[in-house]
Amino acid sequence: MTTTISILGSTGSIGCQTLEILDLTRDEWEINFLTVNTKIAELEQQIKKYHPRGVAISDTKCYLEFKRTTSFTGEILCGEEGVCAAAGDSRNVIVMSALVGFSGVMPTLAAIETGATIALANKETLVSAGDIITKAAQVKNVKILAVDSEHSAILQCLIGESSNEIEKIILTASGGPFRELPKEEFESISLAQALRHPNWSMGNKITIDSATMMNKGFEVIEAKWLFNVPIEKIEVLVHPQSIIHSMVQFQDGSIKAQLGTPDMRVPIGYALHFPHHKPMQFPRLDLAAIGQLTFSPPDYEKFPCLQLAFDAVSMGGASPAILNAANEIAVQAFLKEEIRFIDIPVIIHKCMDTIQNVSHPTLSELTTIDEVTRSTARQECLKLR
Amino acid sequence: MTTTISILGSTGSIGCQTLEILDLTRDEWEINFLTVNTKIAELEQQIKKYHPRGVAISDTKCYLEFKRTTSFTGEILCGEEGVCAAAGDSRNVIVMSALVGFSGVMPTLAAIETGATIALANKETLVSAGDIITKAAQVKNVKILAVDSEHSAILQCLIGESSNEIEKIILTASGGPFRELPKEEFESISLAQALRHPNWSMGNKITIDSATMMNKGFEVIEAKWLFNVPIEKIEVLVHPQSIIHSMVQFQDGSIKAQLGTPDMRVPIGYALHFPHHKPMQFPRLDLAAIGQLTFSPPDYEKFPCLQLAFDAVSMGGASPAILNAANEIAVQAFLKEEIRFIDIPVIIHKCMDTIQNVSHPTLSELTTIDEVTRSTARQECLKLR
Repeated sequence: MTTTISILGSTGSIGCQTLEILDLTRDEWEINFLTVNTKIAELEQQIKKYHPRGVAISDTKCYLEFKRTTSFTGEILCGEEGVCAAAGDSRNVIVMSALVGFSGVMPTLAAIETGATIALANKETLVSAGDIITKAAQVKNVKILAVDSEHSAILQCLIGESSNEIEKIILTASGGPFRELPKEEFESISLAQALRHPNWSMGNKITIDSATMMNKGFEVIEAKWLFNVPIEKIEVLVHPQSIIHSMVQFQDGSIKAQLGTPDMRVPIGYALHFPHHKPMQFPRLDLAAIGQLTFSPPDYEKFPCLQLAFDAVSMGGASPAILNAANEIAVQAFLKEEIRFIDIPVIIHKCMDTIQNVSHPTLSELTTIDEVTRSTARQECLKLR
Repeated sequence: MTTTISILGSTGSIGCQTLEILDLTRDEWEINFLTVNTKIAELEQQIKKYHPRGVAISDTKCYLEFKRTTSFTGEILCGEEGVCAAAGDSRNVIVMSALVGFSGVMPTLAAIETGATIALANKETLVSAGDIITKAAQVKNVKILAVDSEHSAILQCLIGESSNEIEKIILTASGGPFRELPKEEFESISLAQALRHPNWSMGNKITIDSATMMNKGFEVIEAKWLFNVPIEKIEVLVHPQSIIHSMVQFQDGSIKAQLGTPDMRVPIGYALHFPHHKPMQFPRLDLAAIGQLTFSPPDYEKFPCLQLAFDAVSMGGASPAILNAANEIAVQAFLKEEIRFIDIPVIIHKCMDTIQNVSHPTLSELTTIDEVTRSTARQECLKLR
């Protein structure tokens, strides 16, 4: 018996590691669709190795180039519609959603509609559209399994437990590369410094989100939706070694934690084989060798993005979507060295402050708000150049 | 609906804390028997407060004294037979077995025979007679829930998991008061020093076992029986803060841990309400305030008792019972300041070396071996005075 899987964003960091995990039990898997944005050369390599039934390429120019040059005889889909069609293919039993940013929302919804299990590595989907996504999943009785190490840890801690006995979810945070940097030096943080994450090797966008701790803010919002807990029950704890991936405290005071080396393949494998721990031979954690684990409270003054995420949840409605869209634009601008590191939260705050909120946004309202926010954020970036 | 419970060893440290937990949801419990060894004054207090149906007093002199002076109108049982009758009373739904030493074996078996759930705080029961106890429990489909913090941690980590996916059980150890003492100073360790445990407040016997790390050795053997894992899959990790109470590593490398303040009431509450975390308002763990957790490998040269425990399991049969009986006598002698701290493992080793082992001992063979070992150990103690 094989399980049919599609991977949205197959050439990204999570996509590639997903394929690596599938390789461990290759004969258990049927690979349906691989989707990419622009990396058609890498896609060709993956086609040769994994023989998917079809592919989707969201960038139209790259799609045309691929069509012209490939010898691939499977289905070739184009654009965001193509990615949605791949995600929503009725053969999918699992869909790994590893797209970056708001672009993950529509394909994830398409996958939910088919009843496929969602392995969700795209956190912006729940951040922007958590209400819509979780309601759709509930209607279709679809499992959403978060793939990042923190939510995988929480999921593992909650196996066999009653969710009404949760007292607190404790999300651990590495604190990023600037945890110990004095506040007054934040204004001179360079792009190169921000791209140097101490524990995890990830894409550029998420590495910057990690440096601003917006990444942790997103995870707070994600945790709220995934585990259906009020924001007051979610806490962030700085833990620079990233060994304890997160914890759950129960109402008797007992805390469960999940630990491991910082290796995304473990949570990916757990999501793919949920709820089983399939044998994997990656290096084991050796706590005696590590010697110590340290903890401290987060510094909301140095990392205003984290506070903005909590604020967005309290404001409700489309605020988290505004937070996310403004962050995407601000981070893009920082990656192009058009704005400073400390401008990122300023731009987001400005957007959250000025853009009209909607209390129960529809998907189309969210899309509009997403566009308005991007345009506002771009203007704010221009002002700062 | 009330649950009927008996407490074996109700005036000991665990017994008293069990009553404290029952107090939190007093109307859910019917207290059947309380049993004590000699502390009849404390028993009188407990009778006044908890109104048990009956009591058992194992010391005959104390029983007679109690009979003569008490106004208690319930059933009053005498001697080890009395304790066994209390344990084996068919009304019991849960029996908290908090006796000390080998004396816990027969009452625990009597309780298993009635089909009651066993909350087991007496580790020597499984150490000495693990094979017999676990087989009896299997036949009667009885749950044995360990009450110490380490096995409660493992139990919590295994909820909802498949035991065939366990790669390793990692028992944490505080390392006791002599963790950092140089080896050459071990021969001058005084009784007062050995009774000063850094993290837990416990009875004298278990405090000394903790100082020699025999306590951890017992827990290794107990874990083998409770979770049905081979000894090769059990590892000890020194963790002085006793915050992580133990861990389970799965075959994908993922590790689950249970954490908390060092407070026996939490594992007691978990056993009594298993598998639920009932609300308890004891102080919460604050990792940010604690700041750091440290880990190191155990030093088997400074703590030969720990090695002897692993050896006893490898030797099999009655060896763990010999280990336990010899340890009880040696610790008694040390508590009376008749032998030195470093003599404890010497006496145990001597007993394990000289007493004839039996590969699959019956309960009566175990009792004989227990007696022979005690007598041998006493002679060895005399030689060392």
